Amino acid sequence: MSKALTVNSYFEDQVKSIALDNAEGVSTVGVMQIGEYEFGTSQKEYMTVVSGSLTVKLPGESDWQTFTKNQTFIVEANQSFGVKVAEVTAYHCRYE
Amino acid sequence: MSKALTVNSYFEDQVKSIALDNAEGVSTVGVMQIGEYEFGTSQKEYMTVVSGSLTVKLPGESDWQTFTKNQTFIVEANQSFGVKVAEVTAYHCRYE
Repeated sequence: MSKALTVNSYFEDQVKSIALDNAEGVSTVGVMQIGEYEFGTSQKEYMTVVSGSLTVKLPGESDWQTFTKNQTFIVEANQSFGVKVAEVTAYHCRYE
Repeated sequence: MSKALTVNSYFEDQVKSIALDNAEGVSTVGVMQIGEYEFGTSQKEYMTVVSGSLTVKLPGESDWQTFTKNQTFIVEANQSFGVKVAEVTAYHCRYE
């Protein structure tokens, strides 16, 4: 039997994710409750919306952009970015 | 603050999922460890591979089919289906 899957919680359980490691690399799938969050990156992140939408203020940008199902945005390592979540949203985040 | 997100575990923690409810409907995102599983449906399910691949024996089929990233298979309510997982795989499952 493989090792148990790791679930992480952030922002007082308003964001939860499950980690995986496969041919595509190391990533997580997770869900964000409605709210507004500020995330920090330690690696480059490829964030893809799986269901719902994320309105994002990318590092160095002054405008907010909305990403919907199957759309991806990229954040470099050691950056922070803002996320507004207007409906509960599932995402896939791949680390590089 | 919204209610806490629900995490479910199946098959001795070899499969875990997080539930969400948004404009697309009720769904889960989850991860399956390497292994072989038999799932039962209580509602119609639209299963989409988010990362990795699933080899599936759909109800009434004699052959196994492999679904990869962004591919979807549909299972009607009250059916069971077999899944072989050769690499750790993330999925999105929408219920109807």
